[in-house]
Amino acid sequence: MTTPNRLAIGLDIGGTKIAGAVVDKQGTVVDELVEPTPEESDAGAVTAVLLSLIDRFRAKHEVVAIGVGAAGIVEWPAGRMLWAPNNAYRDWPVREQLEKSTSLPVIVDNDANVAALAEARLGEPYPHMVLVTVGTGIGGGLVMDGKIYRGPTGLGAELGHIILNPDGPLCGCGNYGCFEAFASGTALTRMGREAAADDPDGLIARLGREEGEVTGHTVVKAVEQGDEAAKALFARLGRWLGVGIASLANIFEVNAVVVGGGLVETGELLLAPARVAAREYAYAPAARGVAPIVPAKFGGDAGKIGAALLALEYV
Amino acid sequence: MTTPNRLAIGLDIGGTKIAGAVVDKQGTVVDELVEPTPEESDAGAVTAVLLSLIDRFRAKHEVVAIGVGAAGIVEWPAGRMLWAPNNAYRDWPVREQLEKSTSLPVIVDNDANVAALAEARLGEPYPHMVLVTVGTGIGGGLVMDGKIYRGPTGLGAELGHIILNPDGPLCGCGNYGCFEAFASGTALTRMGREAAADDPDGLIARLGREEGEVTGHTVVKAVEQGDEAAKALFARLGRWLGVGIASLANIFEVNAVVVGGGLVETGELLLAPARVAAREYAYAPAARGVAPIVPAKFGGDAGKIGAALLALEYV
Repeated sequence: MTTPNRLAIGLDIGGTKIAGAVVDKQGTVVDELVEPTPEESDAGAVTAVLLSLIDRFRAKHEVVAIGVGAAGIVEWPAGRMLWAPNNAYRDWPVREQLEKSTSLPVIVDNDANVAALAEARLGEPYPHMVLVTVGTGIGGGLVMDGKIYRGPTGLGAELGHIILNPDGPLCGCGNYGCFEAFASGTALTRMGREAAADDPDGLIARLGREEGEVTGHTVVKAVEQGDEAAKALFARLGRWLGVGIASLANIFEVNAVVVGGGLVETGELLLAPARVAAREYAYAPAARGVAPIVPAKFGGDAGKIGAALLALEYV
Repeated sequence: MTTPNRLAIGLDIGGTKIAGAVVDKQGTVVDELVEPTPEESDAGAVTAVLLSLIDRFRAKHEVVAIGVGAAGIVEWPAGRMLWAPNNAYRDWPVREQLEKSTSLPVIVDNDANVAALAEARLGEPYPHMVLVTVGTGIGGGLVMDGKIYRGPTGLGAELGHIILNPDGPLCGCGNYGCFEAFASGTALTRMGREAAADDPDGLIARLGREEGEVTGHTVVKAVEQGDEAAKALFARLGRWLGVGIASLANIFEVNAVVVGGGLVETGELLLAPARVAAREYAYAPAARGVAPIVPAKFGGDAGKIGAALLALEYV
């Protein structure tokens, strides 16, 4: 018997945190929890965190399925995590392990794919959409004609690893000059450290000494205190975001480019320069128009919500 | 009554030449003609060449439809050419004009889209394929699950205008650092002119003086005579081609990347360095593999053949 308001657990494994939620079919978050991604982000350590979150949710809620969105290359529909640039897990049969441990149906997909599903289904009606998630890395989700594009076995839509300059900085994936190397939280950390080294008396360096090290969060904190150097770093980050978005918008004909992930919570600081650059590098804007760049409706929550929605689709 | 071997005219409007052929459903070229693209490549001048080619073909062959592939942004299925980076035509209702003048059914699509159709259907079976055509510009065709991806109204798949370096050279489209600005025949002309200016006694400069100016063809001719400077330019061109291909292969999960267009006739000179760079910039090659880069089976002929094939599909 189908109950009218079935619940699923959605889990979003990112580079720094694992976010979980209990979600219904309308996308309503009934409960949520978050844990840091284990320092040793191998399959065993991450599985332990996932199972702990699942147990705590199931103690309070009746759930019918589990959906996992994970940063990295996920074989579809097998739910095997093949490789991830910013986590240590490799060849990890996530779906198989969680189904065995929980006796619930589990689906596993790339984190940006499930986030795109949430944005496409619950946000504006965007049948043709690119989602760019800006977190530790850059994730990408493509929705074409209302469906997620994954490629035949889930290896497609690795939008964070288009090349924006082959002589650019080293990326977590081992290549040089990827979109992710220029416009992610990791890029902001790198830029913040360079800025702190260049100006040891500046606010970024001072906050870094208080915190023990400079990270992207240090730069965000400095911006919140009105620091001009930190604002300039955001302008550079946003410009690269816009160049990457322009490149994608030249390939796809989309209703909108939705920007999600943790960093989008900085709002116009990131999006305003991105819009300028995306317009500057748009191909034939008079003929093709320029797709609007909008913040994700669900911000950094889209991954866990979309993972739960996808899970509810398969039960 | 359907005849078993119906023929269509395929026309491929490029930046330098307009190629035409009479083709059957199996892709057999029954007849062919070529004309230079008019210096003033506006709609009127190009239409005159198209109608002249059509008349000459129809004087000898019974054809049932006309297919046109044109470099530029073509509204689908209306067959209106909106804009092209390397031709002067704008807002040109190609389909409407040709149907009026010929009283035959006409389809009009982007030149690389129709070329991709020919390669996917008549070449190896590549249900998931990216075609990159290297001619005056760089065209792109995407085949996903056996179907051409055009975007909802034909504005998608502008693969030649992904950004490979936002500080790169000026492109024909007005942007900086597009794939096309780095790896097309126009890029080869620019590089050849720079090389001739740097070394006025070199072969490229000498051949250029004989021909009146240095173009991409001058560089090809110098390579054929074993010139080291010209070979080095091809190595650079091929490397950029490989970087662009890597970027696309990171987005799509494809069976192969097919390289077509006039310049692929230089063979390994272009493809060998492209393969090296495409492997170097492939995302997670151990997990995802590296898509093979193969020359188009139909070389520079894929456009006219694919245009005819597409036309035969709609009658």
